[in-house]
Amino acid sequence: MRKLGESVTKKLDRVFNPRSVAVVGDKQALGYMWLRSLSHFQGKVYSVQIDPNELPGIAQLGVKNYLSLKDIPGPVDYVIASVPRAAAPTIVKDCIQKNVGGVCFFTSGFAETGTEEGTRLQQAITDLAHEAGLPVVGPNCVGVYNPKIGLRHNPVQEYGDGGTVGFIAQSGTHATLFTLAGPRNGIRFSKSVSYGNAAILDSTDYLEYLKTDRETEIVGMYIEAVKDGRRFFNSLREVAEKKPVLIWRGGESEDGARATASHTGALAQSSIIWQTLIRQCGAIKVENLDEMIDTVKALLYLKPARGNRVGLIAMSGGQSVAIADTFAREGLKVPQLSRSSYERLSTFFNIIGGSYRNPFDISSSFLMSENAISNLANMMDVMEQDPNIDSIVLELFTIISPFSHDLGKPDPLMDTILEFKGRSKKPFLTIVTTAHTETLAIEIRDMLTGKGIPCFPSFERGARALKRLVDFYRFRQQQYLN
Amino acid sequence: MRKLGESVTKKLDRVFNPRSVAVVGDKQALGYMWLRSLSHFQGKVYSVQIDPNELPGIAQLGVKNYLSLKDIPGPVDYVIASVPRAAAPTIVKDCIQKNVGGVCFFTSGFAETGTEEGTRLQQAITDLAHEAGLPVVGPNCVGVYNPKIGLRHNPVQEYGDGGTVGFIAQSGTHATLFTLAGPRNGIRFSKSVSYGNAAILDSTDYLEYLKTDRETEIVGMYIEAVKDGRRFFNSLREVAEKKPVLIWRGGESEDGARATASHTGALAQSSIIWQTLIRQCGAIKVENLDEMIDTVKALLYLKPARGNRVGLIAMSGGQSVAIADTFAREGLKVPQLSRSSYERLSTFFNIIGGSYRNPFDISSSFLMSENAISNLANMMDVMEQDPNIDSIVLELFTIISPFSHDLGKPDPLMDTILEFKGRSKKPFLTIVTTAHTETLAIEIRDMLTGKGIPCFPSFERGARALKRLVDFYRFRQQQYLN
Repeated sequence: MRKLGESVTKKLDRVFNPRSVAVVGDKQALGYMWLRSLSHFQGKVYSVQIDPNELPGIAQLGVKNYLSLKDIPGPVDYVIASVPRAAAPTIVKDCIQKNVGGVCFFTSGFAETGTEEGTRLQQAITDLAHEAGLPVVGPNCVGVYNPKIGLRHNPVQEYGDGGTVGFIAQSGTHATLFTLAGPRNGIRFSKSVSYGNAAILDSTDYLEYLKTDRETEIVGMYIEAVKDGRRFFNSLREVAEKKPVLIWRGGESEDGARATASHTGALAQSSIIWQTLIRQCGAIKVENLDEMIDTVKALLYLKPARGNRVGLIAMSGGQSVAIADTFAREGLKVPQLSRSSYERLSTFFNIIGGSYRNPFDISSSFLMSENAISNLANMMDVMEQDPNIDSIVLELFTIISPFSHDLGKPDPLMDTILEFKGRSKKPFLTIVTTAHTETLAIEIRDMLTGKGIPCFPSFERGARALKRLVDFYRFRQQQYLN
Repeated sequence: MRKLGESVTKKLDRVFNPRSVAVVGDKQALGYMWLRSLSHFQGKVYSVQIDPNELPGIAQLGVKNYLSLKDIPGPVDYVIASVPRAAAPTIVKDCIQKNVGGVCFFTSGFAETGTEEGTRLQQAITDLAHEAGLPVVGPNCVGVYNPKIGLRHNPVQEYGDGGTVGFIAQSGTHATLFTLAGPRNGIRFSKSVSYGNAAILDSTDYLEYLKTDRETEIVGMYIEAVKDGRRFFNSLREVAEKKPVLIWRGGESEDGARATASHTGALAQSSIIWQTLIRQCGAIKVENLDEMIDTVKALLYLKPARGNRVGLIAMSGGQSVAIADTFAREGLKVPQLSRSSYERLSTFFNIIGGSYRNPFDISSSFLMSENAISNLANMMDVMEQDPNIDSIVLELFTIISPFSHDLGKPDPLMDTILEFKGRSKKPFLTIVTTAHTETLAIEIRDMLTGKGIPCFPSFERGARALKRLVDFYRFRQQQYLN
């Protein structure tokens, strides 16, 4: 947004932290999703709607309606526009006259349709916004989420305490899915923004904003294309030196690129160049939403990784083979332990029906032992002290749930794991795979996550997240050494 | 099992279909898991236990106990032995004297421990069994599962109607997990066997048995190593010509191979050779339990695939990009449709907020349309008739669940999908990803699966299963052409 120059970040600060929001065009057909999303907004909420049929529904929500943005008495920091596309230029003009902080267009039907009218309308709002220096989010997006002030774009998003993760997404679905799935995974957000066609403000503008945002410590991005590659990568390099940045690139494949064109009008860009630049900037490349969730979780809850050698504890022989194969396939090492570790293990570990070579098969010394809990604590301590081991992974199995089923009860296993996490200096994660008891697995995962113990739902996802973490810290260390 | 020669398959028929089972050594410490697993067995169940402390518990289960196998009055077709390892040779001798059909040793602590005593004991039972021609399953395994006759190795395994899938697993955990997870995924079993150390009978013996078993139409295998590679691959080639065979190789990595040695005493074998031979035999290689489940599901519920070009229907723009990238990444094609398809689509598809270039983004023409159901039916029909499309994939989204929440109610969407599946001649699958509403996603998946509509829990898993199916049918066709 060249015309806005240096002031974009400052202007975005008003957009991300509004004290008043106006929704233009919310309606019954959408279930009044915008006004309902603002039901816990801490500032003023206004509606602008000219259709008399919609007015009773809006009144019922307790929101004051105006026939024009310009009629609203006080200042308006953020406008959400859900209007027919032909009305978009008028709304932009009204925003400029009203001197609002910024506007987000949920409205779609612009350049992404590939139609002449759509392209013309997008150009019209772009020209108007540039001329006036008006920050426009989108069009074709769901805009800003700031949980701390109750600014939401979906009525079931969390509000209240914010977190430290910022998310910049060219897709409204991905912004919604990540912010909805986050809390269940122990991830809470400082801010997020979905920015669709990026007609006026592009990813770089949001990245620059989150760079300065003190609440944001980790930045996730879903990007289909950037308009000014050089500017983006300069910005990325700078931000990535300060805060971990994760990038999920949409449209990596030729077929996916056709989808991005229809989705946000994004032009196809070389995936090889993207991959190279992401790596050079020290950002973390992820390939889907699951990997975004898992890697952010690893950054939030795991100690910094110092190397790629993992100690694996599995609850049966078959699982010990599967977990070792999976971690090895993802590029991690499953080394033998030191001699002194083996000596210590041999004093209590029953190898009839078990094994401790790494991976561990602990069925004999855990599930079938009276000293289950102390044995496990000892094993984890051996790994903690072993110089051959950089990270520790504990599978918690769901055929036999080792946890107290009454989730309220004191649980010695949970206490042991929590205590270990407290004293361990190595990255430590748990994995609860899904067998037949899918809902039990979810309960156990949620319980662990709720206590701050990172838990992953499959060997693959745990291994991939740990590998990303190892690579990230290795890059940081090399950067430091150079 | 050379000494048994040609008669192994016949002997295994008795082991897999026993009319009487004896459990040796079940006990309170195991929760009497063996006798409880047999609570619905259709034949006779006997217990053999000499510890007087265990007798009341066994009596309480209503099972008659004997002090020796030889005391049991009638014939015994299958023995499950859960005894201290030192007693294993005596049990084998008793089995021989009693002329039982076969014996499975749950007992572990043999060659897999790498100890002299373990190796010696394994050799002793092997020599005895070979000498007498006694089929021994294991040791260090959970043995046979035959749901139709209620022969189980886990008290929560399904019994009653059997299915068409046979599973041969060197790991008891994987045999248990697959057979437990199967029914929730629409997979039911003819037989399964876990065979651990394979001291006497090896995978090839079980494969030969399932070759002749009329109830088994698909064979899954989890193998760590085979003893006679040439014999195994000859058998595999023969079976794979008649029935799809899926192979999950445990210990593919160097680190995993260390785990298999401790697990079943399996020797490391070249993964490259394995991969080549599996491909040459026309078997299907899978890498973990999820892939085993997904690929069997695809074989059971999808029409034969004729090519690798997929039509993708996603419920939002962001999802349309993600699903296209994922299917492309797995090696499938997401082509443009024919001109006549596009002409037909343009008559009803709203491209403001949607797209039908393939992948489809149907938010505008489904979620936000009054003609949602008929639009979807039309889209699926367009894909069905399009010569550029070999398979059809429908994402069903869980932010907005398009299904009636009252799962008992008539559901026009479900009816439409069912009708389409009924008339479609192309492979058709659905995907319900997990957002925040994990339990709702599970409910919807289970509902679809219950109606015979294959459903996968992520784009990755759906794409991978379809790719395996495409490769499988391509191999079959090439074989036919040669």
